[in-house]
Amino acid sequence: MLDKERKQAQFPQLEMSHLLYGDKEGFDNFIERQTFFDNHPLFKVDQNFFNKSRQDQILINAQKTIEAAKNLDLANKKYYTPNVLCPQGNFISTVHFAMVIPAFQVLASDDQIKRWMPSLKDFNAFGCYAQSELGHGSDVQNILTVATLDKTTSEFIIHTPNVEATKFWPGELGLYCEFALVFAQLIVDGKNHGVHPFWVRIRDKDTHRPMEGVQLGDIGPKMGYAVKDNGYLSFDHFRAPLDSLLNRYIKVSSDGKVERQGNPKVGYASMLYMRNILCDQYTKFAGKALTIAVRYSLYRRQFKDDNKQEILILDYQCQQQKLFPLLAEFYACIFGSIKIKEIVNENFNRITQYNDFSTLNLTHSILSAAKSNYTYFVANCAEWCRLSCGGHGFAHYSGLPTIFFEMSPNIVLEGENTILNLQLARYLLKQLQNTVSKPESVPSYFQFLSSDTVKIQDVTTIESLAALLGCNCSILTKYAASKFMAHSDLQDSWDTKSGIALAKAASTFIPYFNMICFIDTIQNKAKDTKEILTVLAQVYGITMLLNNSQGLLLKNQISSEQIRLLQDTREQLYPIIRRNALCLVEAQGLSENTLQSLIAPKDGNVYENMYNYASQDNSLNKQKVHEGITYIKKMKEVNAKL
Amino acid sequence: MLDKERKQAQFPQLEMSHLLYGDKEGFDNFIERQTFFDNHPLFKVDQNFFNKSRQDQILINAQKTIEAAKNLDLANKKYYTPNVLCPQGNFISTVHFAMVIPAFQVLASDDQIKRWMPSLKDFNAFGCYAQSELGHGSDVQNILTVATLDKTTSEFIIHTPNVEATKFWPGELGLYCEFALVFAQLIVDGKNHGVHPFWVRIRDKDTHRPMEGVQLGDIGPKMGYAVKDNGYLSFDHFRAPLDSLLNRYIKVSSDGKVERQGNPKVGYASMLYMRNILCDQYTKFAGKALTIAVRYSLYRRQFKDDNKQEILILDYQCQQQKLFPLLAEFYACIFGSIKIKEIVNENFNRITQYNDFSTLNLTHSILSAAKSNYTYFVANCAEWCRLSCGGHGFAHYSGLPTIFFEMSPNIVLEGENTILNLQLARYLLKQLQNTVSKPESVPSYFQFLSSDTVKIQDVTTIESLAALLGCNCSILTKYAASKFMAHSDLQDSWDTKSGIALAKAASTFIPYFNMICFIDTIQNKAKDTKEILTVLAQVYGITMLLNNSQGLLLKNQISSEQIRLLQDTREQLYPIIRRNALCLVEAQGLSENTLQSLIAPKDGNVYENMYNYASQDNSLNKQKVHEGITYIKKMKEVNAKL
Repeated sequence: MLDKERKQAQFPQLEMSHLLYGDKEGFDNFIERQTFFDNHPLFKVDQNFFNKSRQDQILINAQKTIEAAKNLDLANKKYYTPNVLCPQGNFISTVHFAMVIPAFQVLASDDQIKRWMPSLKDFNAFGCYAQSELGHGSDVQNILTVATLDKTTSEFIIHTPNVEATKFWPGELGLYCEFALVFAQLIVDGKNHGVHPFWVRIRDKDTHRPMEGVQLGDIGPKMGYAVKDNGYLSFDHFRAPLDSLLNRYIKVSSDGKVERQGNPKVGYASMLYMRNILCDQYTKFAGKALTIAVRYSLYRRQFKDDNKQEILILDYQCQQQKLFPLLAEFYACIFGSIKIKEIVNENFNRITQYNDFSTLNLTHSILSAAKSNYTYFVANCAEWCRLSCGGHGFAHYSGLPTIFFEMSPNIVLEGENTILNLQLARYLLKQLQNTVSKPESVPSYFQFLSSDTVKIQDVTTIESLAALLGCNCSILTKYAASKFMAHSDLQDSWDTKSGIALAKAASTFIPYFNMICFIDTIQNKAKDTKEILTVLAQVYGITMLLNNSQGLLLKNQISSEQIRLLQDTREQLYPIIRRNALCLVEAQGLSENTLQSLIAPKDGNVYENMYNYASQDNSLNKQKVHEGITYIKKMKEVNAKL
Repeated sequence: MLDKERKQAQFPQLEMSHLLYGDKEGFDNFIERQTFFDNHPLFKVDQNFFNKSRQDQILINAQKTIEAAKNLDLANKKYYTPNVLCPQGNFISTVHFAMVIPAFQVLASDDQIKRWMPSLKDFNAFGCYAQSELGHGSDVQNILTVATLDKTTSEFIIHTPNVEATKFWPGELGLYCEFALVFAQLIVDGKNHGVHPFWVRIRDKDTHRPMEGVQLGDIGPKMGYAVKDNGYLSFDHFRAPLDSLLNRYIKVSSDGKVERQGNPKVGYASMLYMRNILCDQYTKFAGKALTIAVRYSLYRRQFKDDNKQEILILDYQCQQQKLFPLLAEFYACIFGSIKIKEIVNENFNRITQYNDFSTLNLTHSILSAAKSNYTYFVANCAEWCRLSCGGHGFAHYSGLPTIFFEMSPNIVLEGENTILNLQLARYLLKQLQNTVSKPESVPSYFQFLSSDTVKIQDVTTIESLAALLGCNCSILTKYAASKFMAHSDLQDSWDTKSGIALAKAASTFIPYFNMICFIDTIQNKAKDTKEILTVLAQVYGITMLLNNSQGLLLKNQISSEQIRLLQDTREQLYPIIRRNALCLVEAQGLSENTLQSLIAPKDGNVYENMYNYASQDNSLNKQKVHEGITYIKKMKEVNAKL
């Protein structure tokens, strides 16, 4: 049934697969991993997962983790965040490998690394990343946990002074981990030396009970991350040895001498690391949701045409309007994320090899903005894919609700999106200033700020669209700058007078950045996929402009005729995307097991899939006569008495 | 702590409460019901609900239903959809009372009503509404279930010809109900007479097992409505007596004579009924989410100001931008929904008392558009409220995730929103035509279509904003009409050439309609709340225009200076809303138990609430040593072997 759709595609799918995964190696690598999960019975998707209690879901995930550990090298980053391949929850070890170990590597001295790294890697020192507190998440500098040096015993006394200071949210803390990387205010001789990391044992090795002076547990059910035991942790004058302080950048001697060394900014590296994963790995979930929605839209027919034939829902213009801009944005974010990975890696090498911090700010700013933009896009994309599949999109058997659940928390964790967006705003203002004061220092990605007019012939070319997007961001940045500078108390102005303008300006940067990356991919990497990618890039650019061209409007840089032309052009491009839609999503190479969906088989009968699940597999139907009858009887009795 | 906030409000809260519930009686009525739920131990909110399996959640809900049935008259519409008061799932009887009985009342003959209504009301004939099928939801006319008259036995043979024809989704079918109102193609002597309703027993009275020839069960876990047993149902040549056909509008004699009588359009009444509930009752959930988000934003502080004081997050302009437009839209939708209820009731009376169908189209069109607009707003509002509460918004103890889960399906059920929106589009085109051909017939709500220019002095007054919103919709309607008419094959044009323009035009009607209702409330009902309501109405109108003023832009009816003025005005109004924010949400009178949130107490310590839940109540922590230790040991063993 779908073969006709596959045959009509106008581009070589394998070339597209390689572009989506960076290169051939990246794609082959993905397929190899996917094949392992596809073929192992324990990783077969079970739709009944969502009938189960959270406790049972957690235990199933534990079994999967053990099995994965037996077969795969979980410490290899190829495996510890298999994400799109583990839709029913990440392995127990994810946070340990993706956050704790990288942070330890950066923050600990060589001696500490030598001493601990083997046990960190073989689970003998299984740890969590205990930074956020009940009362402080984004504002790390003002966390309340204290670590006070007791010179009499050469120990730190780690203490939670009040409820608000309880560590809250660390993954793998609630049920599993034995160690914690605790961030606390370092106090020596009554003086606060700021926030530093302490590596401490929190559960007893043999009994697994909390150590004396430690209280901990799981924080409760959440939206998303159901199998993750996000936990709470508090200390009552808990004593930790002197070398529990990770001391690559700070040393405290037993007599209270505090010594700083090296550039502690390198600590950002571990944060960049996790945000990069969010941009790189998690963006693929949008493509998963799109694969389900596009395929379903090629099975589902509703309402008849003039010839009494039922119409495929993907042929409706309204359905295309729901899905095609998202499909284009998915491609844009993927190409953007590939570029960002390069930027992050280059920056990391520059720092570690040459102690050169010159691109740290640039990297941090782009990555912050991208994390903010991409994580929101992914959740929003999953949401609209679900909404595009009618009622069936809301059933777990569609595979769509869980994508939204699991992706939505990413909007807030690892840097709340609004705050990250404002970090880019700060950088934009800085670069705006530089365009005047030292134009040679402005990185190429931000040179668009030097102009707020744009002269173009045809608004619909990808180059024009990029220019318009840059100009829009430039005007909005200037507008925000003037709002910000209009008040003498700059801090107050930032917080309460110009936040909206700043956030708006910042939110228009990634559309420009993505467009640049998209064009770069088309011009420098694509061969026989140039044409269809150009169509996608146009749809992306037009969509971004139609969503937000307030900057251009404010300075009359776009006319009503041009807006209308953009709308018409986008509609005219949809039939081309329609023809190629299936292969555009299938280029990702996601297997049916990865999709975890009964409504989007490679080929098959979606209605039989759904019916068979409900009538044969749904665990709720296993009792032949449900206890429900008891209640119906009671309701009759109640009414009889009334 | 929040008392200071309460004292600074600039309007009488009780007057506002009465406006929000229509009048004093409406508010008192709500408080009376809420008090019952607040005081009954079984209805105390249990945060562990979300740790439980779906089976357990369903059984808890069954117990609640029995208890409610003992104490409340569930057949009274005051009680059968208590919605905002029953956040962890509606009673088992909701669909039965809100859909099955109203439909029966309209579709059955007087004799049938006399015979069945007592058992319908006392649960002896507990039924579900079996219309949607696996393959057909929106397109009811093309459902595949057939009911064929067998003249030899005077029975109907109800049959499911293929898997696609399986009834799917009816609530209360999966586990509970004994009857079904089955919609099927009526076949007599080989001739299809269209879709009609049949009332049949599907489960045995004593054993509760499916009747012979019937297959049924629960369809599986979903996003939202976890405790609702949405079911599937198929028939294998199931025989039903002649009078199982509800025959107010059609009669079939045993010898095959088919007779129609009366106006079957009255059948729409039951559909209007349910959609009206969605607009009226479910919109209140947005206010619940806003109460939680606003209160939390008045407890939560993050980052310090120049004076080293931590700033309340509601004082950040960016947080205000997230919440205040939604707060204004909530008020707008509430006032709109009150007006819609009047329109629906007037229409119903006109039909039932005078057999006058003259306002049916108008009512149906406005209600379709409102259902589409409001249900999307509520889900979107819940989503942004969750996102505005940082990490804690994602924990179930915030009460926010469940609002989104339970509200999101409403976007698709009871008329998929895009399709409903297009139904308004059709009506808009009709009225646009009428403005030329018979202007006297155009209902007042649609007279804005007669003009596509607007002349105003000050764009920021509520009257100007209403005029601009009307003009925007008018221009977009004309634009859509010209796109639609540009192709000779009108059906194809509607489906594949002009859907985007039509949907866009239709989506701008409710903002205009709400604004009119808002102004009407301010001018004719408000006394001492006029001022603050005017501010909210301004924020609402400006937000709607800034979100979508493409019509005005296309015809140059708004300038860049005016857009900028609208933006600035909205920002200047935020401090007024900020001052009144708490009382604006508290005017709804929602109790803590109704809010089901630990992060939004009336007064209290949110951090202690969260900590106490995690450390004392979270059922996952009840095992002192979690089975997790087994898995950690296994992971160590696995690694030792590698």
